[in-house]
Amino acid sequence: MSDVVVAVDAMGGDKAPQVPVAGAIEAAREGIGIVLVGDAPLLEKTLEQHGDLPSNIEIVHAPDRILSTDDAVKAVRTKPDASMVVACRHVHEGRAGAVISAGHTGGMLAASTLILRRLPGVIRPGLAVPMPSIAGPIVMIDGGANAECKPEYLAQFAVMGRVLGRDILGIHEPTVGILTIGEEAGKGTELVLETYELLQGTPGFIGNIEGRDIPKGKARIIVTDGFTGNVALKLYEGTAAMIFHEIRRGLTSSVRGKVAGALGMPVFKDLRKNIDPEEYGSAYLLGVRGISMIGHGNTGTRGMANGIRRAAQGIREDVTGHIQAGIAASA
Amino acid sequence: MSDVVVAVDAMGGDKAPQVPVAGAIEAAREGIGIVLVGDAPLLEKTLEQHGDLPSNIEIVHAPDRILSTDDAVKAVRTKPDASMVVACRHVHEGRAGAVISAGHTGGMLAASTLILRRLPGVIRPGLAVPMPSIAGPIVMIDGGANAECKPEYLAQFAVMGRVLGRDILGIHEPTVGILTIGEEAGKGTELVLETYELLQGTPGFIGNIEGRDIPKGKARIIVTDGFTGNVALKLYEGTAAMIFHEIRRGLTSSVRGKVAGALGMPVFKDLRKNIDPEEYGSAYLLGVRGISMIGHGNTGTRGMANGIRRAAQGIREDVTGHIQAGIAASA
Repeated sequence: MSDVVVAVDAMGGDKAPQVPVAGAIEAAREGIGIVLVGDAPLLEKTLEQHGDLPSNIEIVHAPDRILSTDDAVKAVRTKPDASMVVACRHVHEGRAGAVISAGHTGGMLAASTLILRRLPGVIRPGLAVPMPSIAGPIVMIDGGANAECKPEYLAQFAVMGRVLGRDILGIHEPTVGILTIGEEAGKGTELVLETYELLQGTPGFIGNIEGRDIPKGKARIIVTDGFTGNVALKLYEGTAAMIFHEIRRGLTSSVRGKVAGALGMPVFKDLRKNIDPEEYGSAYLLGVRGISMIGHGNTGTRGMANGIRRAAQGIREDVTGHIQAGIAASA
Repeated sequence: MSDVVVAVDAMGGDKAPQVPVAGAIEAAREGIGIVLVGDAPLLEKTLEQHGDLPSNIEIVHAPDRILSTDDAVKAVRTKPDASMVVACRHVHEGRAGAVISAGHTGGMLAASTLILRRLPGVIRPGLAVPMPSIAGPIVMIDGGANAECKPEYLAQFAVMGRVLGRDILGIHEPTVGILTIGEEAGKGTELVLETYELLQGTPGFIGNIEGRDIPKGKARIIVTDGFTGNVALKLYEGTAAMIFHEIRRGLTSSVRGKVAGALGMPVFKDLRKNIDPEEYGSAYLLGVRGISMIGHGNTGTRGMANGIRRAAQGIREDVTGHIQAGIAASA
C-alpha cells in the first residue's frame, strides 16, 4: 500500500457514494492509499463503473450510516458499524493517517472527538475552515465545533490554525487576528479582551480585526468562538453566491447582457474560482489524534479529490505532530 | 417652521461640514425643517456656497466636537457644547423630533442614551441597521450597541425592529428570525435558546436563521447580540465591496473586459444600487425618546439626504409612539 492512507466515508454527502468514490479514484491514481468505507456491495458496483482501478483502493464494509436526523453523540455511541465511525476507527487504530467525510457535520465532529480523541494538552478541538480572500487563503477557527468558548480555547486555536496555514495552505508566516467589533485593543466582549491578553507575544499576532477585514485577508488565521465563526463563514459564502447569482440573472435577461456575459466570462470564471469552496476542500477538526476532515454535504468530485489530496499532504507534513509540539510549547 | 424638524450634526463625518450641509439643503428643499448644529461661522460660509437657501434651515452654534479619539461616555458628559450633544438636546427639549449624525458612533450612542434617555419599559436600546437582501431591505438588530446581551434585550429588539421595518422601510408584515448556527430549534448558545422561547408567539417570528440566510432575506428582522450583529454587517458590506472591486479590476484590465464592462454596466449598476449602503442611509438607535440616527462616517450627500428623509418619515409615522406601544404590549 501507499506511504499515506486516507479513510474515506463513502456513504457521506448528498451525492454518496458516487462523489466520494469518484474523488477517491482520482486521488488514488496519484498514489494516495484509499480505504473506502461503506456498503461493500454498493461500493463494488459503483467502482465497476470506473473501469480499470488502481490497486491502492481497499473496500471496508460498514453496513450502517449516521443520518442527519440522528442525535450526533448518541448515534456515534450506538452505531458502531456506521461508515463514519468505522472510518474514524481506522485512524484510531493506525490503519489510516486521515479520515474524510462529507456526511453529517455534527456526527463527524462527535465521531472524531470520541474515537480519535484529543491530543495531549488540547482543551477543545476547533473546526478550522479555509476560505478565500483577496490576499489568498484564510482560516476561520472555530467554525462551529464549540458554540461557547473560553479564552484558553481561542489561544490554542491560534496555535493550531497557524500549523494548518503553514503546512497545508502554504502560507509562509500566518498572521493571527481576533475577530471583534473594533480594531483598537479593548473592543469587544470579555472573551475577546481576555484572548487578546493571552495572545500577546504569540508569533504572527496582529491584534483585533473586524468583519470587513475578512475578505481583505488582513489576518490569515481568524480566531473566534464557534458561534460567531459559523455565522460569519456561512454569511461570507452566502453573500458571494448571491452576488454571482444576481449577476448571472442580470446578464442572461437581455441580448446585450448575454454578450457582456460572454465577453466577461474569463473575469467571472477567475473570480468564481478564487472564491469556490471546492478549491479549498473541507474543514479540519484540529486538536485530535490524526487528521479529520469534514466536507460540504454538496461537495463535488473535484472538492472530494482536493480534500483527499490535502489530507495526504497533512499526513506527509505531519500536521498532527506540529500541532502537538505547538500546544506543548504554548502551555 | 415645518411640521417635522430634524436636528443635523453638521460637524459629524469624514466630509463635514460639506456633506451634512449639502444633504440638509436637499431635504430642506422638500419641506423638512432642519436645525444645523455646529460651528456657526463655518456653517454660514458653507451654506453661502449653495446660493438661494430655503427658509426652513436654522443654524445653532455648537463650538465643540466629539472626536473619534475621545472616550465616548466621558466626552458626552464633559463637552456640553459638542455639536452631537447639542443636537441630541434639541430632541430632548422637543425642538426637533429626530437627530442624525455621521460622527463618532460610540459618541452618538452615548449621547442618545444619556440625553434622550430610554423609553419606559425598554431595557436596552438596540442599534438597528438596514441592509439589502434579494428579498428587499432587512434589519440587523443589534448592530453593535450592546456587545453582550440577555434574552430579554433580544425579545425587545424583535418588537422594535418590526416597527422600524413597517413604518420606515415599508415592509408589510416583517418576519423575525434569530441569527444562529443551525435552522432547527435547539441550535446555538444559551442566549439563542432562551430568546427562542421568549419569541414564541411573537407576530412574524419564523425561528432560527443562519448566516447564509441573511442575503436571501429569509427573515426581514434579524435579531442578535451586538457582537455577532456588528461582525456580520461589516462582513456583509465588506464582501460585496470586495467582489465589485475585483470585477471592476478584471473588467478594466483588457480590451475584451472593457467592452464586457460597458455592455454589462446596467446590470452592475442595478446590483450596485441594490446593495448600496447610501440607499438605506443610517442606522437607528431604537428604544430612546425620539429618533436617533447614526450615519456612516463616509456617507455622501445622497446618503445624508436619504437619512434626513427617513428621519422625517419616522417622525410623521410616529415610530417612537409605536415602539412604546409595542414594548408595553410585550411586557
